[in-house]
Amino acid sequence: MKNIKVIAFDADDTLFINETYFAETEEKFCSLMSDYLSNQGISKELFKVEIDNLRLYGYGIKGYILSMIEAAMTISNHTLPIEMIAKIIQYGKELLEKPIVLLDGVEETLEALHGKYKLVVATKGDLLDQRRKLHNSGLGHYFHHIEVMSDKQEVDYTDLITRLEIQPSEFFMIGNSLKSDVLPVLAIGGHAVHIPFHTTWAHEKIDHKVVHANFSALEKITDVLKRLE
Amino acid sequence: MKNIKVIAFDADDTLFINETYFAETEEKFCSLMSDYLSNQGISKELFKVEIDNLRLYGYGIKGYILSMIEAAMTISNHTLPIEMIAKIIQYGKELLEKPIVLLDGVEETLEALHGKYKLVVATKGDLLDQRRKLHNSGLGHYFHHIEVMSDKQEVDYTDLITRLEIQPSEFFMIGNSLKSDVLPVLAIGGHAVHIPFHTTWAHEKIDHKVVHANFSALEKITDVLKRLE
Repeated sequence: MKNIKVIAFDADDTLFINETYFAETEEKFCSLMSDYLSNQGISKELFKVEIDNLRLYGYGIKGYILSMIEAAMTISNHTLPIEMIAKIIQYGKELLEKPIVLLDGVEETLEALHGKYKLVVATKGDLLDQRRKLHNSGLGHYFHHIEVMSDKQEVDYTDLITRLEIQPSEFFMIGNSLKSDVLPVLAIGGHAVHIPFHTTWAHEKIDHKVVHANFSALEKITDVLKRLE
Repeated sequence: MKNIKVIAFDADDTLFINETYFAETEEKFCSLMSDYLSNQGISKELFKVEIDNLRLYGYGIKGYILSMIEAAMTISNHTLPIEMIAKIIQYGKELLEKPIVLLDGVEETLEALHGKYKLVVATKGDLLDQRRKLHNSGLGHYFHHIEVMSDKQEVDYTDLITRLEIQPSEFFMIGNSLKSDVLPVLAIGGHAVHIPFHTTWAHEKIDHKVVHANFSALEKITDVLKRLE
């Protein structure tokens, strides 16, 4: 593939484990609240609160903690003991301090691409949290910089490409979310590959197949090297 | 002043009102908690919790809400009614939706500098929140892009300047905090001006005078135009 100048990597569940940790936290939250509702009912209410708050809070762990607190109040009809709020904050702080576990092939792929392209991280979520994770991952030196995006819609990618001072056709995105990392990039004329992670947050799921000349679905991140040849 | 390529503006309390809104919220928080402690005692405890959480939460309103909740639990010795937690979350959401009030001379200054320099916003805080504020301010079109920084220490400005692909001596910072907008910029060889806002968060206060060839203290933002001549 010629003409690619910038390769952008999604971070969470593309470079390192993330959704697994959220799932663990949600499990702890469900068992904390199990006197009030079934696990399924709790998850459903939490998801509803998260989506309602997305406009105000955006993505990231701090908003997630606030949504857990709000969901806990609703689920318990404002009867839960105050110690449970303290527990939820503790779960949130633990989530912020989870160790970074790199996904298979990530370092090998970055090593091979480094110096040939401008590599950036393009992630939504919490700025401080994403910077810390990248720093702790030991991958920081492979990247020119980190782009923390407030969302990953077409307009956000257009902004990103303007900031990078390149053409959409010179942009290549790698990520685990068809909805966030692939579809908007293809829509504005960029290239994208999808590398699925075993767990996907409900909000990121789409239910159709993607077929596009600038797109390919890969099994593992090292397959990117062949795709770029 | 020759050679300046990028002018970076702090956002909160440099372009538009911010600290005033935090102060209002803190007042509401103090009166909510007034059964437990004096206003001074409450503010002191909240500040302590905020600073303790800074490493984990960073700057911004969501972390502030979480710190208010935590401080409320400590202050009441875990006895406060759950409705008060709901109140605190409500105060936080109101803070996130405050209207944008531009400071005097801002638009005039941007209008005059636009097209002559690359203008960026360099702010710490919450990415989504800062983007929304800039968007709602109607000032977005003056800026090449917004740099949301996880902190404003020397290393963060060095990263910024690397990302901008300029020399420190080509960088000019405008802000209301000597500690965050001025001292670290001067330390790495950049230029800075200080435009005080009437209220300064305790964490941003320093108690010495700044004297430096690359620095000047101005009374109002329009004075920047003369300084750049």
